[in-house]
Amino acid sequence: MTALHGFLPPLTPKGSSALVPNPPWYYSGTLLTIEYLTDPANVRAILPDDIDLAPDRPGAVALIWADWQSCSEGGLELLDPIRSQYLEAFAVVRCAYQGVTYSRCVAIWVTKDFAIGRGWFQGYPKKFGSIHVTRLFNRGKATPRLENGAQLGASLSAYDHRLASAVVTLREPSEDNGFVNGHKMLHNRFMPSIATGGGMSLDQLVSMGGIDVDLGPAWRGDAELSLADSQWDELGSLLPVDEVLGGYYREVGTTFVGGELVTDRSRPV
Amino acid sequence: MTALHGFLPPLTPKGSSALVPNPPWYYSGTLLTIEYLTDPANVRAILPDDIDLAPDRPGAVALIWADWQSCSEGGLELLDPIRSQYLEAFAVVRCAYQGVTYSRCVAIWVTKDFAIGRGWFQGYPKKFGSIHVTRLFNRGKATPRLENGAQLGASLSAYDHRLASAVVTLREPSEDNGFVNGHKMLHNRFMPSIATGGGMSLDQLVSMGGIDVDLGPAWRGDAELSLADSQWDELGSLLPVDEVLGGYYREVGTTFVGGELVTDRSRPV
Amino acid sequence: MTALHGFLPPLTPKGSSALVPNPPWYYSGTLLTIEYLTDPANVRAILPDDIDLAPDRPGAVALIWADWQSCSEGGLELLDPIRSQYLEAFAVVRCAYQGVTYSRCVAIWVTKDFAIGRGWFQGYPKKFGSIHVTRLFNRGKATPRLENGAQLGASLSAYDHRLASAVVTLREPSEDNGFVNGHKMLHNRFMPSIATGGGMSLDQLVSMGGIDVDLGPAWRGDAELSLADSQWDELGSLLPVDEVLGGYYREVGTTFVGGELVTDRSRPV
Amino acid sequence: MTALHGFLPPLTPKGSSALVPNPPWYYSGTLLTIEYLTDPANVRAILPDDIDLAPDRPGAVALIWADWQSCSEGGLELLDPIRSQYLEAFAVVRCAYQGVTYSRCVAIWVTKDFAIGRGWFQGYPKKFGSIHVTRLFNRGKATPRLENGAQLGASLSAYDHRLASAVVTLREPSEDNGFVNGHKMLHNRFMPSIATGGGMSLDQLVSMGGIDVDLGPAWRGDAELSLADSQWDELGSLLPVDEVLGGYYREVGTTFVGGELVTDRSRPV
Repeated sequence: MTALHGFLPPLTPKGSSALVPNPPWYYSGTLLTIEYLTDPANVRAILPDDIDLAPDRPGAVALIWADWQSCSEGGLELLDPIRSQYLEAFAVVRCAYQGVTYSRCVAIWVTKDFAIGRGWFQGYPKKFGSIHVTRLFNRGKATPRLENGAQLGASLSAYDHRLASAVVTLREPSEDNGFVNGHKMLHNRFMPSIATGGGMSLDQLVSMGGIDVDLGPAWRGDAELSLADSQWDELGSLLPVDEVLGGYYREVGTTFVGGELVTDRSRPV
Repeated sequence: MTALHGFLPPLTPKGSSALVPNPPWYYSGTLLTIEYLTDPANVRAILPDDIDLAPDRPGAVALIWADWQSCSEGGLELLDPIRSQYLEAFAVVRCAYQGVTYSRCVAIWVTKDFAIGRGWFQGYPKKFGSIHVTRLFNRGKATPRLENGAQLGASLSAYDHRLASAVVTLREPSEDNGFVNGHKMLHNRFMPSIATGGGMSLDQLVSMGGIDVDLGPAWRGDAELSLADSQWDELGSLLPVDEVLGGYYREVGTTFVGGELVTDRSRPV
Repeated sequence: MTALHGFLPPLTPKGSSALVPNPPWYYSGTLLTIEYLTDPANVRAILPDDIDLAPDRPGAVALIWADWQSCSEGGLELLDPIRSQYLEAFAVVRCAYQGVTYSRCVAIWVTKDFAIGRGWFQGYPKKFGSIHVTRLFNRGKATPRLENGAQLGASLSAYDHRLASAVVTLREPSEDNGFVNGHKMLHNRFMPSIATGGGMSLDQLVSMGGIDVDLGPAWRGDAELSLADSQWDELGSLLPVDEVLGGYYREVGTTFVGGELVTDRSRPV
Repeated sequence: MTALHGFLPPLTPKGSSALVPNPPWYYSGTLLTIEYLTDPANVRAILPDDIDLAPDRPGAVALIWADWQSCSEGGLELLDPIRSQYLEAFAVVRCAYQGVTYSRCVAIWVTKDFAIGRGWFQGYPKKFGSIHVTRLFNRGKATPRLENGAQLGASLSAYDHRLASAVVTLREPSEDNGFVNGHKMLHNRFMPSIATGGGMSLDQLVSMGGIDVDLGPAWRGDAELSLADSQWDELGSLLPVDEVLGGYYREVGTTFVGGELVTDRSRPV
């Protein structure tokens, strides 16, 4: 009898239909990050009961636009680039669990289905969005360059509602591209019982991080950020901006090979 | 402390960001169905080991284009129709488990993220696709009408590769719109461990069906169907067409309120 | 030597690459119309100098969502429906020229390139948009029906900015679906000289209307309408709503076979 | 009375709704070029009667994927990058007119409406397509780098039919990125009379080229190219590949400020 192959469904004998292939997953791209402060009560309100606020600057938020090219082992995706390229816009806060500080993604939109599948696996609460961020080219007049005064724009829309618009003006080289998204991620993975009201068939706390991180030069600067809600998405009301801390741009490469189970409360329901 | 609300992530205090809200989920739309025979060995090859071929016509396949409007309780989605309308193209086979015959979706593409989320919950192996099917209007010359000779086209593309093209020519009223998709669904829900190679954190067999099914008049006729593969999707090689049985068109309404757990092999990994 | 064929470029020996094939063009679909009053000065401001305000209710505006299936002679487009189906959202005012009252489209967004091409030919100032409108199905609970209290939503977005959101609540059958879009259209067609600052190589006033109009029953009711601008599109500031007159829904069919040249001021530049 | 402003319609008092603003138009991006030989009879067949084959290598074709960021004076588009970024895939041949050799675009697909509008103005026969090309990043493992063995993929799809797939393998630095697209462009601009069968209201031959061309280092290598037709687009049958000459990658910047009228045969119809 033929076995079924693939990492995420659909599974087939050959395995090439899988929404997501086996890790490792490789990433090359750019990150445009805006960090700001919101009332820590807003962060507290979107954390599960058993997860605490971070002890330091608990109201810090990073809103990040990632412009990725990504592939699995062998790099087949790079030769049909529609399967390789995608963008993400996501909100990250910090939190603490059993005394350790983690980063945590509390909202994220992506442009491709394989990215949604990877998010389900990793506990990123992914939805589809339309996402754009200014690119840096080396030639011509229709591009900023990596220098003082360079301006990069970014936008996020979902279901045809503009949820975020941003402009970052770079000022100077920086040692890092922010501090909020700098810890291992602490995420929940869950799946309700197929029987309505039956509780959680999958209910896990997991943690993970990238390896082989390959960092380009970081720049920091000023940022303007406008957030909104729609009927289907809360962003402006969930994590309103009190004070912008700064904007950052950096090229990055990273690899994902898996994470660790922290706690499991799943039940056979 | 604020509780978090929502059916599928992201969860928020208010709950309106959820990718999918609580059932019931209501559906109104049209189904264009093409039924055909493939070698039963092809069906056998995509069933898990513990699921058997259906005893009768085990090589029968239904390829279905659904053009849906859908909403949850209260119908808010209908007032912002981008959140309500989507299309699906999916392949259904029949199978048997512990002596009972079921329908089973083995491949499915949809046009919206909330539909992907519902599929993840129901065990439909959903991916994103670009899907189109001819509509029936009542006025003018750019539409077939529900009559002998009416022709409806349909297409499915994923990652810019055309996977299926079809034309159905209606001939006569029919008592049903096929037999392959007529049983309760038997699906697998699974999620690999976050630790690579760690086995399945969620591994369930579930079954489900619609309620309050509201059927319009069915028509049957002839069908032409062309299937293909891409690097990312197997369809033409997975379930090749030996003999087309017929094509069907029907308006339908249905409601989903949940299903039943059949077996659970999940492990806390 | 082979001749080149096709109605709009690209032209090829076979002619099947043309962005738009030869008329006649057939249309079947639905119209959701909202009529309202704006200050007549707003209408005056977007008419060319030589075109006058309509003598009666000069500040009346119709904002229309059309959900079309369309084909040319032979109907090949209907068998590959991605080439046949599109939506339009457009603003129509009335005007007068040499004593005759016309309708005039002053802003329009569509979802397909062939529709942009037809607009360029007809003098509709078409741009690309993302457009949605609630559909009426006959089965199930996720649809309004043609009855008192039925609610239909509609949206228009361009470059990920929401420009219009509307809800129409139907109340009763109506003899028509409004009066603003009821005259022949009076449009300008122009093309600047390829030499910058060279004037207009094409500068025409044209008129046109549909034939073989096939009308379904019209319903009228109340409407809510919210308009906005973006950096790239003026709608809310251009034709702000003073008073909503009503909302309408109607199925329609029509055929376009060409129009008439009214004046020509083109120059060989 | 208020004047109407804007380069291409719609025109408004403020002018910010124009599909395309006034030149100059600035471009920064990358070009992936594949040059090949087809039978010169194929090139002859898609040239108008009064345009000749180029005297040297008349069967040479360049198929080019351009990944652009573009803006007008002031650069506002760069701050809302959805309005600035687009891709093009286009086929270029060479031709001769009155003894001068020109380049000529005979088929082109783009991803944004403003690019279609610029094409109408410049005589590029633009249609919408879905276009992707591998990008070069500087970090991580999901990217080729500018070196021997680097592989870049590219695809073009229109109406969900894959029309072209390509892979270029870079081998060495090159002095240029091909010879086919290296001359001034010679294009036709036309618009049929609004009266069916009425001839051409606009019928011009125009020429143009870029200024301030800013070229990055070029690389050349091998290429694989697969072309196809659909019902709506001729490419594989129009310009079939006899022999691939090579593949090229180069970053480029350019500026468009207008062109020259060569001949005018427009008539007031």
